[in-house]
Amino acid sequence: MSSHPQQSAVTVLGLGPMGRALAGAFLDAGLRTTVWNRTPGRNRDLVERGAVGARSAEEAVAASGLTVACVVNYDAVDAILRREAVTDALKGRTVVNLSADTPARARDTAAWAAGHGIQYLDGAIMTPTTTIGTPAAVFIHSGPEELYRKHLPVLEALGGTHTHLGEEIGRAAAYDIALLDIFWTAMAGYAHALAVAKAEGVTAQELAPLAKGIGAIIPPLFEQAAEGVDSGDFSGEGNPITSAASSMAHIVQTSEGHGIDAGVMRAAEGMARRVIGLGHGTDGFIRIAEVLGRR
Amino acid sequence: MSSHPQQSAVTVLGLGPMGRALAGAFLDAGLRTTVWNRTPGRNRDLVERGAVGARSAEEAVAASGLTVACVVNYDAVDAILRREAVTDALKGRTVVNLSADTPARARDTAAWAAGHGIQYLDGAIMTPTTTIGTPAAVFIHSGPEELYRKHLPVLEALGGTHTHLGEEIGRAAAYDIALLDIFWTAMAGYAHALAVAKAEGVTAQELAPLAKGIGAIIPPLFEQAAEGVDSGDFSGEGNPITSAASSMAHIVQTSEGHGIDAGVMRAAEGMARRVIGLGHGTDGFIRIAEVLGRR
Repeated sequence: MSSHPQQSAVTVLGLGPMGRALAGAFLDAGLRTTVWNRTPGRNRDLVERGAVGARSAEEAVAASGLTVACVVNYDAVDAILRREAVTDALKGRTVVNLSADTPARARDTAAWAAGHGIQYLDGAIMTPTTTIGTPAAVFIHSGPEELYRKHLPVLEALGGTHTHLGEEIGRAAAYDIALLDIFWTAMAGYAHALAVAKAEGVTAQELAPLAKGIGAIIPPLFEQAAEGVDSGDFSGEGNPITSAASSMAHIVQTSEGHGIDAGVMRAAEGMARRVIGLGHGTDGFIRIAEVLGRR
Repeated sequence: MSSHPQQSAVTVLGLGPMGRALAGAFLDAGLRTTVWNRTPGRNRDLVERGAVGARSAEEAVAASGLTVACVVNYDAVDAILRREAVTDALKGRTVVNLSADTPARARDTAAWAAGHGIQYLDGAIMTPTTTIGTPAAVFIHSGPEELYRKHLPVLEALGGTHTHLGEEIGRAAAYDIALLDIFWTAMAGYAHALAVAKAEGVTAQELAPLAKGIGAIIPPLFEQAAEGVDSGDFSGEGNPITSAASSMAHIVQTSEGHGIDAGVMRAAEGMARRVIGLGHGTDGFIRIAEVLGRR
């Protein structure tokens, strides 16, 4: 007999690296865990660890009051959930969708769920698979707060911190998109910098300690800029965007001088030049955020 | 009488915000400091604090064995130094050029200096004006090591850490370019993320704590990736570049759905797609560094 009441059963749809990590954490927490993956054969070790391997998605969602979906995107979510047998089986149950996609797709899924008597929460996982089940995991959620509170005890089996960002269902995806924007743009800059450094005879490991130092001064600047952006204060304070644009031009020139594509920096410099062209040359770089958002 | 021997005199060319900070730090350290700026009237408070206000660049450089140049770029450096009167006055003296530009311009300036009997070091300042004279300042230098050692005691009056990156004169500029590439690309990503978040109803200050969290996980990833890049190991380890490209497409779609230019992310996604097209889809994102550098 399980140490948890019946409602602590959970189903995981999708057994990619992240889905497998989620199912493993639920099992470790002693929850009755049912798993299913579109491509069969991914559940063997989870079943050995005590998971129930469902033979179909409808069987999987019928096994638990709560289904956690973690697949590649919402096209894949739709392909699984929006079949009559699955939709019928989900009626009166809850789906927490931890797949990644756009806020618009989250809203569309919520509308579909409401139209079929399915309770729906949307969420995103902000940390790698290795953090799942540990304090380092970061989950964000949006949707009806009461529904979130109801399922939080099960979700907390995944470890880490869970934050409810609001009732508007697209909110978790909006945060996810914005944070991934920061992350992947920064990584693109680093990859490009390594290519340019190498062309100049500087190895990645030579650059890394200083790169780490530069990386460390950025997060406090994020916080510092945020207040100004919300209040409409974009003052440069001795760091005008004209000076940034000048640095960016040097980067493009050095990169292209080595035959290295500088498309990312060209686009970034273009944003800075646009801001300067609009008469904000003495403002700080972050004025870009306001100009980009203009209609 | 000065507490420092004659050779501790220093000249600062360029009195923009950074040049003024440098001159101020030299004065605070008790050095005999001569200052000059192309546009007059910028030296008043420095002269009140004890600086010698030179009437011409040639008079300025003649006043000290060491001249520190800090102007907007190397076009501005050339306009000051490559006039016969100034070049003649510099003969046998040392120039430390802390202006920012490309490695190619640093090499060109070194060749000009060598051709005129002028000793030359190239450097870059990696931290804001407010750090000058404090432990937080970061300076990088390249050029003849003996010359660097000779002038280091005076340079140390600027505070912070000074690192000699090698004898190859373009090295400081190469590091500078690579580090600014990381910095400005990351800031461009943040500015864009704020614009997208705002369009989704998320304020900068709501996003900032999570943005800071994402920012904090990036520098360790820089170090982690560096070893792989140098040794040619780009393995994705559960984070394939295909998954990054999928996130990037969601970001572009969300951004453009709000009418917000996504040029930077489009260019970054393009690099990822190129890597995937070349057959490296299971590799990690950092494979981009290698592919960008291919001839």
